[in-house]
Amino acid sequence: MIDDPFERTRAMFDLPKGVVYLDGNSLGAMPKSARERVRRELDECWGRELIRAWNTAGWIDLPSRVGDRIGALVGARKGSVIAGDSTSINLFKALTAALELAQPRKVILSDSGNFPTDLYVAEGVCRLLGRGHQLKLVDPEAAESALDERVAVLMLTEVDYRTGRRHDMRLLTGKAKACGAVTIWDLAHSAGAFPVDLAGCDVDFAVGCGYKYLNGGPGAPAFVYVRPDLQARVAPALSGWMGHAAPFAFEPSYRPGQGVERLRVGTPPVLSMAALDAAMDVFDGVDMLVLWERSIALSEDFIRRIEADCPELQLASPRDPARRGSQVSFRFAEGYAAMQALIARGVIGDFRAPDVMRFGFTPLYIGFTEVETAAGALIEIVRRGLWDRPEHHARNKVT
Amino acid sequence: MIDDPFERTRAMFDLPKGVVYLDGNSLGAMPKSARERVRRELDECWGRELIRAWNTAGWIDLPSRVGDRIGALVGARKGSVIAGDSTSINLFKALTAALELAQPRKVILSDSGNFPTDLYVAEGVCRLLGRGHQLKLVDPEAAESALDERVAVLMLTEVDYRTGRRHDMRLLTGKAKACGAVTIWDLAHSAGAFPVDLAGCDVDFAVGCGYKYLNGGPGAPAFVYVRPDLQARVAPALSGWMGHAAPFAFEPSYRPGQGVERLRVGTPPVLSMAALDAAMDVFDGVDMLVLWERSIALSEDFIRRIEADCPELQLASPRDPARRGSQVSFRFAEGYAAMQALIARGVIGDFRAPDVMRFGFTPLYIGFTEVETAAGALIEIVRRGLWDRPEHHARNKVT
Repeated sequence: MIDDPFERTRAMFDLPKGVVYLDGNSLGAMPKSARERVRRELDECWGRELIRAWNTAGWIDLPSRVGDRIGALVGARKGSVIAGDSTSINLFKALTAALELAQPRKVILSDSGNFPTDLYVAEGVCRLLGRGHQLKLVDPEAAESALDERVAVLMLTEVDYRTGRRHDMRLLTGKAKACGAVTIWDLAHSAGAFPVDLAGCDVDFAVGCGYKYLNGGPGAPAFVYVRPDLQARVAPALSGWMGHAAPFAFEPSYRPGQGVERLRVGTPPVLSMAALDAAMDVFDGVDMLVLWERSIALSEDFIRRIEADCPELQLASPRDPARRGSQVSFRFAEGYAAMQALIARGVIGDFRAPDVMRFGFTPLYIGFTEVETAAGALIEIVRRGLWDRPEHHARNKVT
Repeated sequence: MIDDPFERTRAMFDLPKGVVYLDGNSLGAMPKSARERVRRELDECWGRELIRAWNTAGWIDLPSRVGDRIGALVGARKGSVIAGDSTSINLFKALTAALELAQPRKVILSDSGNFPTDLYVAEGVCRLLGRGHQLKLVDPEAAESALDERVAVLMLTEVDYRTGRRHDMRLLTGKAKACGAVTIWDLAHSAGAFPVDLAGCDVDFAVGCGYKYLNGGPGAPAFVYVRPDLQARVAPALSGWMGHAAPFAFEPSYRPGQGVERLRVGTPPVLSMAALDAAMDVFDGVDMLVLWERSIALSEDFIRRIEADCPELQLASPRDPARRGSQVSFRFAEGYAAMQALIARGVIGDFRAPDVMRFGFTPLYIGFTEVETAAGALIEIVRRGLWDRPEHHARNKVT
């Protein structure tokens, strides 16, 4: 066994005994720091300081403080990320702003592998604006060739939630900019999983999720990134008081706040936001490149084991690790039932219809021992057919 | 001392010793049930069940379950309230839907006493739609006479956040409907404070806040109400996957969910939502009319004491308790400094520029003893001039 640089981070998580948790791509495991922090927010802040905690406990600045911590993981400069709301709502903010910048173009280009909520939000924006905008969907592989001077916004999720297929952000962003299109990247399966270089790729807008690889807790606040030099040109569609230049002056008219602060809307859910803040402690001192190399090593080990002993499963993820996120997916006709059997044995991955078994590998709390255990259990289940007939369809997971 | 029917609810709160907390209209105090519930969500759900808790702990249904509990306090039928997001974002949902229903009318009528974020959101909607909608502001007293057949939406906050002045919801809603206008009521300072009769008043849309009189915790999720027979006609502007008819079918196109469920957007912040859910336990068995009568008795006692011994302060709230919410405000030129001195003595109210001292009275944890203590401290401070010169302006509170 090679030396494990992640022994330190693994000790920072509270994982149930006997469980191998490979679903951090749906809901990250609980960092001890998050649990302790929320307890403190309850006992010492809400419970003792009450209203005063907005200042004494720094609640008021949480969205920008947490935003900057996330920004440091995704190649964003200080002051260009704000945490809050959900990914869907942040995408609405980014998309309405991007379409205004891209006038008079009308086409939102995305791909059929995008997570549905992104497509739903885009549909909603087109309908709401009522000015002839349209959402154009192409195959993921065709995104590059579909870029032309009619495209207003290129809106993609970097990593496919089913297959783990990863877009080339640098290439596609460069191509989009050459066509005069505004770019929005959804980093739901990227942030905290591998190095992202938003500033270096010259991305215009990005959004992402706090509850997957960032381990911020169930439904943790999401985040939105705006390229620094674009911020002053964004007129927020969701113009709430927390995004006002002077929220506590209670002026009758809206004036957007400084920079990315203007993308705050209402009062943030402090308990959930504090959990996310504390969860970010796990990343202090973590080199994202080292994390990513380790993730690849774990994934490759899992693929090798499954392919060696379990030919019934077909790799659904790209074979080239540079083209994957931090998850590995296999197709298997009995995947739903097999995943239930696997979960019953304490190996938690998840399933996406019609036949995709997904396994997330974050080195923060997963090592080679867990990979071996998981692969061994899966191989035994599949080879021996150890599953019940499925009784119902899978309404069972939240990505 | 008369018999206190709220001894039971007062025991359900964890209040710091030596503090008289009259700022529940900004941030409600912490119910013990909320603290215990969040601990359980951490230790037993996120920490142990991990992703499975979406089903085993019922996270997935929290927004409608919590919505129904809030609905029961504001006169809403089951299935007409959903919890989630912030008040500002819920107002955006309601306003975009209301304007669509009110076509081709273009005027949003509101009043100058509305909480600024409501006005900011309306400005943002008008700008975003770009179809000539306009926000028309009148004095609160002029709202009724300003209603005519040009008004698309009457958008009011029932209780003024500064003065506590309360609109006549039944009268104004009836008048608005007679003019063919759609109504939106913001219940930020109403829900949990006194009886509200949304269904009985035939209100179309309402929004409200979870962290004031509902005691749901800092930045607790907000809520939105849609009149049952309107729900099927609402095409959500914020069309996220959690509002889809089948979120886990991952269909490529949006289909709105059943009823008010369609106003869900993204993944809800579970820790904050669970705190709000548990905070609602306090209201189990509480008769809102009894609560309201008690609130009036407390407020009247406070006013009587201040007016008897502290003529320097002018009552800013309506003298008729039927025209007030559950707060009492006084104007005082040195109000900011006096409030700081009061807080330093453990009596926590708050201040709104230029000269308004606010005091919230919720019988859930405030009794006549606290009123006497608070009034005594305030009277002593004002009469003896026990405050420092203010050094800076009040960027110090969150309503």
